[in-house]
Amino acid sequence: MALHEQLRELLAAGAVEDLRRVVAERHESELAEAFAELDQDERGALLRLLDTETAADVFSGAEEAIQEELADALTDAELAELVEEMDSDEAADTVRLLEPEEQDRVFDLLEDETESEVRRLLVHEEDTAGDLMMVELAAIHEDAIIAEAIELIREKADEIEELYNVYVIDSARRLVGTLSLRDMVLARPGMPLRAVMEPPEVTVTPEMDQEEVARVFRRYDLVSLPVVDAAGVLVGRITVDDVMDVMEEEAREDISRFAGMGEESFQPRGVLRISRDRLPWLVLGLFGGLLSARILQGFQGSLSRMLSLAFFVPVVTALGGNIGIQSSTIVVRGLATGEFRSGSVRRRILRELAVSLLNGFVIGLVTFGAVWLWLGDLALGSVVAVSMLTVVLWASITGTAVPLLLRRFGVDPAYATGPFVTTTNDIVDLSIYLGIAFHFRDLLT
Amino acid sequence: MALHEQLRELLAAGAVEDLRRVVAERHESELAEAFAELDQDERGALLRLLDTETAADVFSGAEEAIQEELADALTDAELAELVEEMDSDEAADTVRLLEPEEQDRVFDLLEDETESEVRRLLVHEEDTAGDLMMVELAAIHEDAIIAEAIELIREKADEIEELYNVYVIDSARRLVGTLSLRDMVLARPGMPLRAVMEPPEVTVTPEMDQEEVARVFRRYDLVSLPVVDAAGVLVGRITVDDVMDVMEEEAREDISRFAGMGEESFQPRGVLRISRDRLPWLVLGLFGGLLSARILQGFQGSLSRMLSLAFFVPVVTALGGNIGIQSSTIVVRGLATGEFRSGSVRRRILRELAVSLLNGFVIGLVTFGAVWLWLGDLALGSVVAVSMLTVVLWASITGTAVPLLLRRFGVDPAYATGPFVTTTNDIVDLSIYLGIAFHFRDLLT
Repeated sequence: MALHEQLRELLAAGAVEDLRRVVAERHESELAEAFAELDQDERGALLRLLDTETAADVFSGAEEAIQEELADALTDAELAELVEEMDSDEAADTVRLLEPEEQDRVFDLLEDETESEVRRLLVHEEDTAGDLMMVELAAIHEDAIIAEAIELIREKADEIEELYNVYVIDSARRLVGTLSLRDMVLARPGMPLRAVMEPPEVTVTPEMDQEEVARVFRRYDLVSLPVVDAAGVLVGRITVDDVMDVMEEEAREDISRFAGMGEESFQPRGVLRISRDRLPWLVLGLFGGLLSARILQGFQGSLSRMLSLAFFVPVVTALGGNIGIQSSTIVVRGLATGEFRSGSVRRRILRELAVSLLNGFVIGLVTFGAVWLWLGDLALGSVVAVSMLTVVLWASITGTAVPLLLRRFGVDPAYATGPFVTTTNDIVDLSIYLGIAFHFRDLLT
Repeated sequence: MALHEQLRELLAAGAVEDLRRVVAERHESELAEAFAELDQDERGALLRLLDTETAADVFSGAEEAIQEELADALTDAELAELVEEMDSDEAADTVRLLEPEEQDRVFDLLEDETESEVRRLLVHEEDTAGDLMMVELAAIHEDAIIAEAIELIREKADEIEELYNVYVIDSARRLVGTLSLRDMVLARPGMPLRAVMEPPEVTVTPEMDQEEVARVFRRYDLVSLPVVDAAGVLVGRITVDDVMDVMEEEAREDISRFAGMGEESFQPRGVLRISRDRLPWLVLGLFGGLLSARILQGFQGSLSRMLSLAFFVPVVTALGGNIGIQSSTIVVRGLATGEFRSGSVRRRILRELAVSLLNGFVIGLVTFGAVWLWLGDLALGSVVAVSMLTVVLWASITGTAVPLLLRRFGVDPAYATGPFVTTTNDIVDLSIYLGIAFHFRDLLT
């Protein structure tokens, strides 16, 4: 029996002792997964039965949609108790879920130190380094010796779970070095920190975008990263587990743009909410389609004289769509991973155009042959082939330019691979094809 | 001046001393990035000027396409020197690039220990835990005391860069526990390991797929993970920096399926190679388009009697395409991240169908109204609306079923969001629409 079914039965039977035993045997990540499968009432009931530490872990591990529901269901006192137990970054994320008045009520119930930590973290915008960082860290003055650093770790051992190094600071709390646990193990207790520490390899400021933070982690192979303010003062640190979540989130975001839906669709929401999340993109597609219909109507004369012209509409638009997606995907991906540096942008765009034109030429030639062989119509084959080449050129220019333009205007370039651009392209492709056919209408029988 | 331009100038001028000075000032990740911008000859020349350690880092950090070129350009002795300097996982990846005969020649030049390590790693299939793992680790017998573990770290300090814990093994080298550096810092030197170590939280076997390994890292918030064979014997460990690369690679792979191109397109290859990489998908789209043309020709009679029927082909196929991509994306993503567990598959599929039908109904209704108002044709409006509902049903069933079927047959489900399925859907959508129109041809004027 799956864990969530087991929990469900025990909850229904009110078997509190058995529930506690089952929960104690499982890793918190398994509990978080089972938790997602329960319904809202079961989740609330279960959370109240768990000890506060486990409850806080399970709450933090849940999807945001579930957290929102739970935050509504729990009392202020219950929320405050959970927040008190969390790491500061998770505590801030939890408080962020609440309405302003509810935040104030929960703040009143928190210990002063927790309140000030959370308030300091809430200042930072979502999806920045400041949002990812936690304030729990081990920092020690540069004049200390190794034995004092060891003593510090002993004091902090309970509070800090993922401890990979000790930060060395000056009297103004500016970061001057880092000390890895490995070096602490190897150093003699009486050694001054200055003799063992290394200068900080890389730091970030709280304003940095989380995608950029993930890039820094990958580039320098980090497990944790100190965050300093503009004056170099140590304000927090980011750990790699949160960065893996960011990478997952960013990949999901890109893919949701691609598929033409918001991120609601990926959360365990109800049918109506998901429907509302996707409908705008479908309506967009519909208007695109109706516009295409209107364009086809505009060329009614040509089409009724030569119906076979209509047969090749799908051929032309499919090619334009495919080429456009290939080009824009390369650019969007390059921008997202940072591989697309300014130095190489022009070279890459030229390469894209060369690839697309080459492929367009091949496909156009094959189509020309196919139409000729099939319908024996040289003129129609030429019109289709010329249209395809034009469409390919348009699709690959817009496919590379649109993501770059979107980025310049501060919009996520990933939208360039989504339905808005593809719908627009369909309309343009159709107009190009029918326009060329109309231009050469005297050649077409 | 960008670093790669600076390097290029110094290389051209043969200013070896200046080059070495510039290189020494930069982080290896910056060098790897600049390296990507140089041409093949410059890369070879630069690599020969670097000290072996930096050269090995730069080589390991380069894209696979660049590594292949370099492996061709370097002599066996130069390759062996680099491999000797690398961590075992990177050494194995490098040897894997070579042809069998070249591998043998390089093996002859390696030290015996390196050779046997690399040979052991090469046994594992690509993209598995065994491929990701390195054999460099700190393992110590369970009867030891803390002081001995510290001594072990001292010995291994040079060899092992990312050391987060010590593995505790029994006399048969089976993993029995782990000891974090933090606990070592806090423990007294005379304490037995048994008193301090914790049982291994999670282990994987070398056969596990790398995507699954990444999921384990995220689930348990790990920075390193021991790999054990079927008998529980410790054979290696995986570190989180490689897992971040895997996550990036898997996201890229999913997106390349989406956009209908191989992974070559993302590598710094030449135009011809990229063109060859994308052409198959374009040809596929072309054949789909030609098949659509053939179907349209089949309904020539109906279309010439009522040309306005042709106007709505883009409306119907766009909706089917968009709904299909939305549904399949949810399933593909759910399978990739492991959120889509078997317990919840049926519920999710039902939810998908409900969302799609609801949306299809809304869009169908709007279209019916639009056609009626525009052309004043109630019958045509009904045919288009009924077709749209049918197409939506088909698109959302196949959108959810195809990824699940692909997975059952061992194919990457991400193909379900790519051109093969969308092209097929276009053809089916067109047939449904024209079929329904033909069926009700007597109602259409």
